[in-house]
Amino acid sequence: IANINSTNMRLRLPLLCIILEVILIILFGTLVEYNDDTHAKLWNENRTDSDTRNDHENEFYYRYPSFQDVHVMIFVGFGFLMTFLQRYGFSSVGFNFLIAAFSLQWATLMQGFFHGLHHGKIHVGVTSMINADFCTGSVLISFGAVLGKTSPVQLLVMAIFEVTLFAVNEFILLSILGVNDAGGSMTIHTFGAYFGLVVTRVLYRPNLDKSKHRNSSVYHSDLFAMIGTIYLWMFWPSFNSAITNYGDPQHRTAMNTYYSLAACTLATFAFSALVNPEGKLDMVHIQNAALAGGVAVGTAGEMMLTAFGSMIVGFLAGTISVLGYKYLTPVLESKLKIQDTCGIHNLHGMPGVLGAVVGAVTAALASPDVYGHGLQRVFADVETGKWNPQSRGGFQAISLAVTLGMALFGGLITGFILKLPIYGAPPDTHCFEDGLYWEVPGEEEGHQELYEVATPNEVEKLSS
Amino acid sequence: IANINSTNMRLRLPLLCIILEVILIILFGTLVEYNDDTHAKLWNENRTDSDTRNDHENEFYYRYPSFQDVHVMIFVGFGFLMTFLQRYGFSSVGFNFLIAAFSLQWATLMQGFFHGLHHGKIHVGVTSMINADFCTGSVLISFGAVLGKTSPVQLLVMAIFEVTLFAVNEFILLSILGVNDAGGSMTIHTFGAYFGLVVTRVLYRPNLDKSKHRNSSVYHSDLFAMIGTIYLWMFWPSFNSAITNYGDPQHRTAMNTYYSLAACTLATFAFSALVNPEGKLDMVHIQNAALAGGVAVGTAGEMMLTAFGSMIVGFLAGTISVLGYKYLTPVLESKLKIQDTCGIHNLHGMPGVLGAVVGAVTAALASPDVYGHGLQRVFADVETGKWNPQSRGGFQAISLAVTLGMALFGGLITGFILKLPIYGAPPDTHCFEDGLYWEVPGEEEGHQELYEVATPNEVEKLSS
Amino acid sequence: IANINSTNMRLRLPLLCIILEVILIILFGTLVEYNDDTHAKLWNENRTDSDTRNDHENEFYYRYPSFQDVHVMIFVGFGFLMTFLQRYGFSSVGFNFLIAAFSLQWATLMQGFFHGLHHGKIHVGVTSMINADFCTGSVLISFGAVLGKTSPVQLLVMAIFEVTLFAVNEFILLSILGVNDAGGSMTIHTFGAYFGLVVTRVLYRPNLDKSKHRNSSVYHSDLFAMIGTIYLWMFWPSFNSAITNYGDPQHRTAMNTYYSLAACTLATFAFSALVNPEGKLDMVHIQNAALAGGVAVGTAGEMMLTAFGSMIVGFLAGTISVLGYKYLTPVLESKLKIQDTCGIHNLHGMPGVLGAVVGAVTAALASPDVYGHGLQRVFADVETGKWNPQSRGGFQAISLAVTLGMALFGGLITGFILKLPIYGAPPDTHCFEDGLYWEVPGEEEGHQELYEVATPNEVEKLSS
Repeated sequence: IANINSTNMRLRLPLLCIILEVILIILFGTLVEYNDDTHAKLWNENRTDSDTRNDHENEFYYRYPSFQDVHVMIFVGFGFLMTFLQRYGFSSVGFNFLIAAFSLQWATLMQGFFHGLHHGKIHVGVTSMINADFCTGSVLISFGAVLGKTSPVQLLVMAIFEVTLFAVNEFILLSILGVNDAGGSMTIHTFGAYFGLVVTRVLYRPNLDKSKHRNSSVYHSDLFAMIGTIYLWMFWPSFNSAITNYGDPQHRTAMNTYYSLAACTLATFAFSALVNPEGKLDMVHIQNAALAGGVAVGTAGEMMLTAFGSMIVGFLAGTISVLGYKYLTPVLESKLKIQDTCGIHNLHGMPGVLGAVVGAVTAALASPDVYGHGLQRVFADVETGKWNPQSRGGFQAISLAVTLGMALFGGLITGFILKLPIYGAPPDTHCFEDGLYWEVPGEEEGHQELYEVATPNEVEKLSS
Repeated sequence: IANINSTNMRLRLPLLCIILEVILIILFGTLVEYNDDTHAKLWNENRTDSDTRNDHENEFYYRYPSFQDVHVMIFVGFGFLMTFLQRYGFSSVGFNFLIAAFSLQWATLMQGFFHGLHHGKIHVGVTSMINADFCTGSVLISFGAVLGKTSPVQLLVMAIFEVTLFAVNEFILLSILGVNDAGGSMTIHTFGAYFGLVVTRVLYRPNLDKSKHRNSSVYHSDLFAMIGTIYLWMFWPSFNSAITNYGDPQHRTAMNTYYSLAACTLATFAFSALVNPEGKLDMVHIQNAALAGGVAVGTAGEMMLTAFGSMIVGFLAGTISVLGYKYLTPVLESKLKIQDTCGIHNLHGMPGVLGAVVGAVTAALASPDVYGHGLQRVFADVETGKWNPQSRGGFQAISLAVTLGMALFGGLITGFILKLPIYGAPPDTHCFEDGLYWEVPGEEEGHQELYEVATPNEVEKLSS
Repeated sequence: IANINSTNMRLRLPLLCIILEVILIILFGTLVEYNDDTHAKLWNENRTDSDTRNDHENEFYYRYPSFQDVHVMIFVGFGFLMTFLQRYGFSSVGFNFLIAAFSLQWATLMQGFFHGLHHGKIHVGVTSMINADFCTGSVLISFGAVLGKTSPVQLLVMAIFEVTLFAVNEFILLSILGVNDAGGSMTIHTFGAYFGLVVTRVLYRPNLDKSKHRNSSVYHSDLFAMIGTIYLWMFWPSFNSAITNYGDPQHRTAMNTYYSLAACTLATFAFSALVNPEGKLDMVHIQNAALAGGVAVGTAGEMMLTAFGSMIVGFLAGTISVLGYKYLTPVLESKLKIQDTCGIHNLHGMPGVLGAVVGAVTAALASPDVYGHGLQRVFADVETGKWNPQSRGGFQAISLAVTLGMALFGGLITGFILKLPIYGAPPDTHCFEDGLYWEVPGEEEGHQELYEVATPNEVEKLSS
């Protein structure tokens, strides 16, 4: 049995992965069923005639392209965005892969449990796949805060708790309060960001500067990260629109997001150059702040925000995000002891809150004059007659408060659980280092071996 | 205030970005409205019944997947294709990002203005998003000619003019002459290429060889560039078919492009090995010439070109493109003083002209025998009774001449505007160098710092 | 004329490419026609009314998004997955590009020839494009076995034979035996894997360890390979569902694959850490074994396998794949003289066989109780009244045997043809080396030139 302080994953990681997957398989076997659109019997019972038009109306054709775009954002977008660190590319894209693959299964169960069991069963189809990927996104946002300072076992444990609380929060917002949040400014971004920030606060490492030399990028790692950035940027319109109602809401959401992001990008370049004494652009800003426009229209995107409104929101989001990276992140670290590796507070935290506020205001300003018969297709409670724009705006604002509360509370609990010294977390001297958890190849022939640092495990072994 | 010759972007870039975005926001607020498919009120007024089939007919479901493929080509395709330079990856993908984000907003206004205002308003939806991305593509082609030799401020100024003239040329071709050019052999590729070539001619730098050592690739930069190439190649069928009519034209265009590209790829490999004394393949050819087949069926792709015809066109395009890189580009530089960094003349210029000619010939050969009732779905003026294949072929040929004229004229004007010494263009000694405009990280630990060249700004600062 | 042992491609590669493409063009001109959905006349003859709904039913809108995902897997997925070798990135992505571009054209002809000529003509549309890409995938799997040890001429010759035999085998399975294999566990993966393994056995190089130092990865090459892995992983649901029937089968297949892959990923991480003495993860496993879950539901994915069943299959597939890399691959090499560069036996061979067995069992267990009216939409012979689950299970099993036989026989013949010393194969000392067939740039300024090895051609030239 390995030393409890060792970072050796040989027993811990396989045991946890296998136990989790076995539990998942048992629960799926017990609880999960095909929904009407994926079940051979049920889909074909519902056929009114024998022509193929019926098959063309399967939700697959109207949701699956969006699903695939979201899927790319989760696995390529988040995964490569975090490869900016010079020696943490394997872990960034690899652990992202692992915890996403786990989270989407666990989220299917948790969301299915809260969002309506059908005779005790969870019904799955492309919409549940999108929702599971959304919940996964939230976990990956939190991952960004603790990047480089956690073992894969810790990350899986974090995912277990975060997915669960995500589903609770989502249930409160969407089912109890009945608010709008199709693109997840609140449920995904605000929740994931503040949850992760609290976790990293609890896991504060006073001696992290021992790994400071690895906590930065190199030329090619920044280019790999740009792959992540650009994919997130391009597919964000699909993300925000993936589960809106069909027709005009989905179309409008994609377009609003497109304009918000375009305006955000110009703001990002402008302020990145402005805050640098030599007027040089900073890759950290471009990689991250240019995406804030997508976050900030996550709630209001499906509303009649207009291209004009979207561009204003996007411009603001990019601006606060760059300023956050430049001026707020150092303060959070030095004063509040929040070590936020990827700066998720700037990309998901503040823009998420902005998105919630914009959503509340836009909802409060909604009127039948502007939306016509489309009003009930955006705001679910119109049909029930209970609809009132001001109260809707109020519920949107309450939802933000609930989300912040859930995130802070959940992050606190989870942070203390993750602090137990049993997960093989990296020592302060070996953070941001792939070599702890991965077989890392040498450099090209003729180069000196770059990755020959002795890991704590090896030191331990040598000295035993 | 910085020295007028300084490359310091601290004031110039933020000012320009913010002014442009504010103008865009004001114009969008004044002029832009949701179209029928994105407007909550209008879309739902048009509903004939309450079933969901109606929503499934929203143009979103038939255009948006194509839009996303085009979007990937613009941001990943063009962006990464240009990362082949050893020290210009940040600028390639970053400036591509900036000028594309600006151009798509400006193009929405310019194209909307020329292509039909609705009661003084520009109506936007997924089709306008595709068209804006197309126009952006043209700007990015021109970017390829001046790559490494221009500041981001210059590039934005170029985009302002090029987008405007693109919209004028597109209006003349599509609305006045009424010709076909769904994939933009003329409007996008020929226009973008010759515009950019004239600009780079006007900006001729006799002492560019001072930066010669940076005007080449390294091993990994060539692999990054292949990401761009492959995405462009794969999604070109979506590009050419994105705004054709629904049904057979869209389907046929995608397939013709697929075959043209496949044949082009074999020609590219064949001639790349043939023109090398040792029979070795050249990455420049593979990265670029293999795409010429997509350019060359940009006009005729929607016509009954057949797989057979598409493959011949693709094979020719790949051949002339490789030969152009090998034999023509050096002559253009030495004799005509056209310094074409990416060889856009070989990828977009000659294949674009070939595509225009193929389009004219294919249109002239069109007949009701071959097209049946589908004739009017490809050639818009059939219904009006004015249709005549020979005259249509003639108009197609005239369109090529108009496009060349517009590109040469526009490039000349724009080139002289860009020559003003106020934009912070790089000095001859520091072209193809990210360090001028970006904070560039060092190499991995243990390596020598590669990017420690002193930039002109720093020299200036030190000596002041 | 070059020495027959020379690796100089100057004559051989261009000649072969041009001859092949000319033959393809002639055959396409003679045999290939637009199908009903791509032909201007035929599509519009079939219109029952003038509304646009008809155009929305063109198969383009229901197949093309799947096609594009498959296309990405073929060109980015396979291409970049193989870039893991330190000095073989150009060849991996470049030769993948070349042989895929050739194979998809040749496959269109071969598959069209076997799967039903229409009055002597091959009809093409988006479905034939998907099928051609599928066949190409099989060739690329075989490429993985011989990666680094073959010239591009050899690879093209291999593709000629493999595509032909693939089409024969597919014809026997789908048209004669009438079995299910929508995602190609048998036709694509098992066939491609064992074909390639036999080829590499015949081409056995006893002195391959002279190139051993190049037969491994470096840090960034592993990250490039992860681009391939992640794209394959994300889009595998589209791959398996691309040509199933519309409606519930397509939707269900995508979802089953999604769950299989998620479970497979957890198994891969678990066993990768478990088999390493220090508990470190191995990039080879993550890059490859995590994909085995997609292979293993290639046959049963469209059946009522359930998420539960899919996850069990995926978990098993990941497990055997990692164990194969760790324990079986070294034995295959040392005892059976099978030098399998990418370990395709672990990713495609064993999981493909597993997939065939799972398919046979799932088919044998199918019943009208579970499938209802959907039964005939999954199993084609239900309508004819001949359907019997047990015999169907038997036919599925026979199909696996046929596939293995065809692969072994075809690989043997092809291997001996490829052994002729006329193709410019690399010498044992220069395997896994781009410099033989590509102009390779130097490293960044200030670095020593890494790629200055003299190739055999150059040695020959110097000594002549």
